[in-house]
Amino acid sequence: MNAAQPTDRRARRKAETREKLLEAARGVFARQGIETTRINEITDAANVGFGSFYNHFDSKDAIVAAVVEETARDVGAAIDVATVHLEDPAEIVAVSHRVLVGLATADPELGWLLVRLELTHGVVSRGLGAYAARDLDLGRTHGRFAIDDVPLTLASTGGALLGAMRALLAGHPPEGTAERHAAVVLRILGLDVDEADEIASRPMPPI
Amino acid sequence: MNAAQPTDRRARRKAETREKLLEAARGVFARQGIETTRINEITDAANVGFGSFYNHFDSKDAIVAAVVEETARDVGAAIDVATVHLEDPAEIVAVSHRVLVGLATADPELGWLLVRLELTHGVVSRGLGAYAARDLDLGRTHGRFAIDDVPLTLASTGGALLGAMRALLAGHPPEGTAERHAAVVLRILGLDVDEADEIASRPMPPI
Repeated sequence: MNAAQPTDRRARRKAETREKLLEAARGVFARQGIETTRINEITDAANVGFGSFYNHFDSKDAIVAAVVEETARDVGAAIDVATVHLEDPAEIVAVSHRVLVGLATADPELGWLLVRLELTHGVVSRGLGAYAARDLDLGRTHGRFAIDDVPLTLASTGGALLGAMRALLAGHPPEGTAERHAAVVLRILGLDVDEADEIASRPMPPI
Repeated sequence: MNAAQPTDRRARRKAETREKLLEAARGVFARQGIETTRINEITDAANVGFGSFYNHFDSKDAIVAAVVEETARDVGAAIDVATVHLEDPAEIVAVSHRVLVGLATADPELGWLLVRLELTHGVVSRGLGAYAARDLDLGRTHGRFAIDDVPLTLASTGGALLGAMRALLAGHPPEGTAERHAAVVLRILGLDVDEADEIASRPMPPI
């Protein structure tokens, strides 16, 4: 026994409560959107007292910012793992979009969260957009992509992605949708129809 | 003088109040979104008493539905006027998207309204989607477009459109953006890069 233990326990409990609040916030934001959510709806969903919210976050904006950051980081990490061994920018982009569509299909709450956070906080266009911009620049530099307005291209591919996610969340059959969406993205980047189809339907890299 | 006149005047005044409420609702929805808007914010903006709202609409949902219907109809009519003399499905699609981007650029309130209404009411994908589906079917039947999943293609082109509108509303320079966006849409439909650019930058039909 030493004096550090009670502090450790308190720190661990505090971290657990923070994680409970974040998890609850993700769910409430996904269901009803960010703008209409009140803090007590988050604490109720987390089964945490209203007052203790402020031990972890200064405001609703602060927990929204934490959810945005965490979501962009987690999704970005999943993309990095899937694309780390690829070299062709076109295949990197295709696999990235297939991972994103796959995540939204496997976890509709995450899909809704991305759709909702995009409107209010640009989580796809600004957060994940940093990843996407890197890949587009790479492809443009290598002459692989025929694009001249990178910000508009990011808006187009991000918009097409959100459109595909929303179609899936609304009941579009998932079979083959991630591949067809990835082919759409490669067409936007200037690849011809046959090459876009071929690259978009390659076996996914082992994760 | 006859007995019909006071009734006419009342009917006209009633129609004017209804139009004031609709105009106010469009503005409030565009600024702050649909979900967070309360009826008294609409009546305040319209400078109309709270109670008289219910002489015109049963509920907030009813005025939202009226705004959705009116917006889709007005925008659809603008597209019809611009495309009525065109025959090539690719040019019809390109001009339609240029009209839409042009409307959002000329009238940012309408742009925001379309972006907001899409999230909650699918005004682009469901309302204007009917126009778009007709054009895509036409192009597919004539072998002009290489598309096999029409609903996903509508989601992609609608998503790219909303992405372009949001980029413009966020400050993307407008010069040439409508044409570049239209070229993106034609790429999605399977046209090659050069033909997409050529069709997207033709002179607009006289309106």
